[in-house]
Formats: sequence, C-alpha cells, structure tokens
Amino acid sequence: MHDVAASADVSQAVVSIVLSGSYAGRASETTAQRVRDAASELGYRPNLQAKSLKTGRTEIIGLVGDEVATSPFSGMMIKGAQDRAWQEHHTLMTVDTGGDDALERAAVETMLSHQVHGILYTAMFHREVKIPRAALDTRVVCLNARDVEGRAPSVVPDEVTGGYEATRALLDAGHTRIAMINIHSTIPAAVGRLEGYRRALSEAGLARDPALVRPGDGTHRSGVDAVEDLLALPSPPTAIFCGTDRTALGAYQALSAKGLEIPGDISIVGFDDQDVLRDFFQPPLTTVQLPFAEMGDRAAALVLDASAPAEVHLIHCPVIHRESVGPPKGR
Amino acid sequence: MHDVAASADVSQAVVSIVLSGSYAGRASETTAQRVRDAASELGYRPNLQAKSLKTGRTEIIGLVGDEVATSPFSGMMIKGAQDRAWQEHHTLMTVDTGGDDALERAAVETMLSHQVHGILYTAMFHREVKIPRAALDTRVVCLNARDVEGRAPSVVPDEVTGGYEATRALLDAGHTRIAMINIHSTIPAAVGRLEGYRRALSEAGLARDPALVRPGDGTHRSGVDAVEDLLALPSPPTAIFCGTDRTALGAYQALSAKGLEIPGDISIVGFDDQDVLRDFFQPPLTTVQLPFAEMGDRAAALVLDASAPAEVHLIHCPVIHRESVGPPKGR
Repeated sequence: MHDVAASADVSQAVVSIVLSGSYAGRASETTAQRVRDAASELGYRPNLQAKSLKTGRTEIIGLVGDEVATSPFSGMMIKGAQDRAWQEHHTLMTVDTGGDDALERAAVETMLSHQVHGILYTAMFHREVKIPRAALDTRVVCLNARDVEGRAPSVVPDEVTGGYEATRALLDAGHTRIAMINIHSTIPAAVGRLEGYRRALSEAGLARDPALVRPGDGTHRSGVDAVEDLLALPSPPTAIFCGTDRTALGAYQALSAKGLEIPGDISIVGFDDQDVLRDFFQPPLTTVQLPFAEMGDRAAALVLDASAPAEVHLIHCPVIHRESVGPPKGR
Repeated sequence: MHDVAASADVSQAVVSIVLSGSYAGRASETTAQRVRDAASELGYRPNLQAKSLKTGRTEIIGLVGDEVATSPFSGMMIKGAQDRAWQEHHTLMTVDTGGDDALERAAVETMLSHQVHGILYTAMFHREVKIPRAALDTRVVCLNARDVEGRAPSVVPDEVTGGYEATRALLDAGHTRIAMINIHSTIPAAVGRLEGYRRALSEAGLARDPALVRPGDGTHRSGVDAVEDLLALPSPPTAIFCGTDRTALGAYQALSAKGLEIPGDISIVGFDDQDVLRDFFQPPLTTVQLPFAEMGDRAAALVLDASAPAEVHLIHCPVIHRESVGPPKGR
C-alpha cells in the first residue's frame, strides 16, 4: 500500500478508500483512476480475503427479487451475482418478495439495518421498475430491470440486438419470408425483439408484411396457434422467429402435427435458451441466449464499484446455433 | 399478557420469553406448554406485527442451500419457507453456496454475526447432511435433508409412502405386471421410492420380479433406455412407475416411438410433479407430488419454535391423478 500511495502521489488512506470502492465524495475520479492504475501496475490488491478468512464473516450484498423462487430464469442470474460477490469476498443474500410490497419494504429495511454493502434490485422478467425510496440509502443496482428514474445503474439484456441477430441468422440462411411470433406487446422483451426483427428485415431490403407478425403471450399455446395462422396464409413463411423458447416448442409441435420438418420445410429460431426445455427440441433449437450469469456478474460488480454512474448496461444476447435453421425449401 | 400470566400462574416476563420462542434454559417445557395453552385459550398473540411495522424491520431467518439457483426444485421450497416466515414477521434470506464449503462457512458466520433467528440448512435434492458446527450456535432445521447426527429437526418428503401410493394407483387400476424405473440407487429418493413400490406389490400378494426393476439416473434418457429393455422382456409390464417425471417423459417418447398408447397399451406414473415439464405430457401424467411448499412452510415453523425436538418430519407426497393410468389392455 505504501508503494501504491507513493506512486500515485496520495496518502495511504486515499489508497484504502479508493480500492475499497467507498471513495465517492472523498476522492476525485482522476485521483481514483491514478490509484487504480498504480495498484494494477504494482500488482497490489487489498487483502480482503485475509480479513474475511480471519473473521470468518463477509460483507453482505442483498438481492431483492420479485419472483426469484418460482421463476425458471432466476437461477443463473443469482449464480452470476453470487459468484462475483464471493470472488470479491461478499455473501449474496436473496429475498424473494413474491411481488408483495410490504415484504419488499421490510426486506429493504432489514437489509439496511444490517448494513448491507448494497442492493441488487432484481426483476424476474426484464421490465421497468421504480426503486423503493428506502433502498436509495445504500448503493442500488437494477438487475434485469431498468430504473425508470435513472438513479441507479441498470443491467438489462440487449433485446434489440438479440432480435436483430436472431432474424439475421434466418436471413443469412437465405430466407426472405420470415415471420415473428411475439410476446405480450408492451414489455421490453417484446418491444425490443420486434424492433430488432424489423431492423434486420429493413436492412436486408425486405418490405414489412404485418401478416407475418403474430401476437402471442410467450406460451407454448401461442406457438401452436400462431403456426396454424401462419400456415393458412396465401404465402406462408419459410422461417419463424419465436419470441420465446416455449413458443418455439409449440411451433415445433404444430409443425410436426402437420407433417412438416424442421429445418427441411421451415426454419425456427427461439429466444431465451431456457435450459429446462432444451432436451425437448428435436432437432435442437437455434435460439438466443439471455445472458443471465453475465448480467448477475455485472450487476454485482457494479454494486461493489461505488464510482459507477447510473447508466444502462446492455448485455449482449448471443445466438446459439444448433440445428433448427437451414436454407429455404427448394434452394 | 397480564391475563395469560395470571391464567398460567407465571410472571409476564415468562409469558414473553415463552411466546417469543426463546425460553430454552429459562422455563421448563411444562411451564411453556401451560403458557401456550393459556395464550391460545385467551386468544393472545404478542404484537409482533406492530413491532415490525413500527421499525420497518423484521428478524432474519437464514436459508443456506447447496444449489438453490440452478435447481428447478428450489422454488416452492423457498416460497413455502418465505411465506411462513413473513406471516410470522420474519424475512427469509437465502444464500446459494453452490456446494462450496468455504462459502457455506462464510455464509453461516455472516448469518450468525447478524444474529439470524435461525438457519434452514437446505438440500436441493433429498439427502443426508452433516450440519456445519458453527451453525449449531443458532437454531437449525434441515430442509429436504436429514441430519445424520440427529441434532436438529429435519423435514423431508415421505418417499416410501410416495412410492407405495404410486404403485397402489397402478394396482388399483388392475395391473399386476408393474415395472419400476429407479434413480441413482443410493440416494434417499431412490431407496425410499423402491421400498414403497416393493411394499405395495408385496401387500398385493405379487411376487417380486427383479427384471421389472430397471436402473436409471433420473434423466429423460434413462426412461427411453429402460422402456426399450422392458418391452424386450418375454412378459413385458402393463404399467411402469417412473422414479422421476423426466424419466416418465423419456418413457412417453419411447412408447410413442413404438406406436404404443398411454394408458391404452401401458400405464405410467411419475414422481416429482415438476411444473416445468407438466405441459409436455400428452396425456397429462399421473404423478406423485414432492410437497416442497409444505416442506418449506413446516421447516420455517420449526425454526421459529425453539421447543420443537430434533425429530424427522416426513411430509406426505400425494398422488396427483391425471390421465396416464387406465386398466391393463384387454380388460
């Protein structure tokens, strides 16, 4: 620490507060960066591990989530946050409020009274949220949620790019009649994925055909229904981008019931890469991954970095190429 | 409180410590029971809610689990525990250790240093556990886990009765050639469900046929494989009890591939009632429910009841009758 202080031309106290992440209001960003550069150059890292090993205790990061327990999505998000927290010598403690406001308030107050390092305010499906007032007494990061008031950093999936790349995968295979089965139309996943789909088609010089965009609600059922509608069109699509994997599974079943093959007769791309469904796709589904582990990791890193501004962090949703996309029939 | 104290012939202080659950070593069990009886008779209940509403804070119950985040089973268990805790004016905070011993130690120490009311030491699949030493400094209840040392109450599914009733459902429909596809053979779920299966057959006066008990590992794949083996027997079964729903789904697919109908040609019972799989069974699967919400509820109630002895609480696993069981073919 002495060497870092000398190299950055600050006191050891400043090194300590900068590297502990708690320098807001006590050191400028320029100074903080100088300290971090010096520390990194000299390979110095405050011995947090020794401290936590000695006491056997770690600091707490709280995660307040709305339906952690019952959502198939929460797993990797919590694991990503947990792994990052633990790596930085913190313990992640999760409260599932089940959407109960009184429980949420009590959870936040309880976390504050136990002096948590910060709170990950987490939604189980990507949505806009208003952070509870009390939570702002500590550091808050919104996870899978966008802070409508812009008071805290938010970490969300990049739905638009995900929808764009899903559609590109179908365009790249040669398709020009590409349908989309969307989710409830007002949530960010639906809005973003549709925007990405439209952008890709427009970039490829294809005219919009509203008949090819089917409403849905993310369920298996809406995949079945939408496929029946799409196949009844005068000029049916040769490829379908499904807004969720569940919907894609419905599409698989409806196509199979009609004796149509994937991708021989029609290509399918999903969205979510939900692991519990993965086994049920025959052939394996090409889909877009919601990067939950990475989102959790990023949010935990941000809650530990007191200097991070209240920005929206879009996390890339990669296309996972499997076997449900091929060239259009007859090509 | 005055009336309860008078009726039970103790001081108000004793009423308070008994009803707060913290009387161990400060009042006898007989006295405690007298106080509880008096309180219940007089309809008295300490005003914990007023206290928590006033401070906005609640006491913490810690849940330490080995793979909370990535298990499809954890949801309802955590929700059951959370709902009970909240009803009793506590907040449940969960740490997912991912099976990391150092993290588990740190989580326990951190919970102790924050004076949690108690710890639910939780396994994501039913197994035997050894409670970490440090945790015993507070009240511990094992959830979905059996404390091998018998130091704490344990709440586990009643696997034996579950296996028994699954098999009875098939016997009651008239089957006498009933196969079982088991899970990894040493875990309590496998041992218990098999024992229940054997007990039901033996009660029905049926001889054991070892060829009808197939090994498996709980996966979809082992359902497919075991069905192929079973159909190749000289005298194939007319009904199959599958050790897990995943395995039952594999069995469905293997039977469908052979052109056999459920329950027309063969009846199937599963185990777990895993909600993420429910949609994929055509016809809907008759299965045995793992009562996770009830287990979580019971464990939270036990952690709040300091007088509960270190017993094993077996929670009943009910058969959920749907459409995969019918009479044997030709009857």
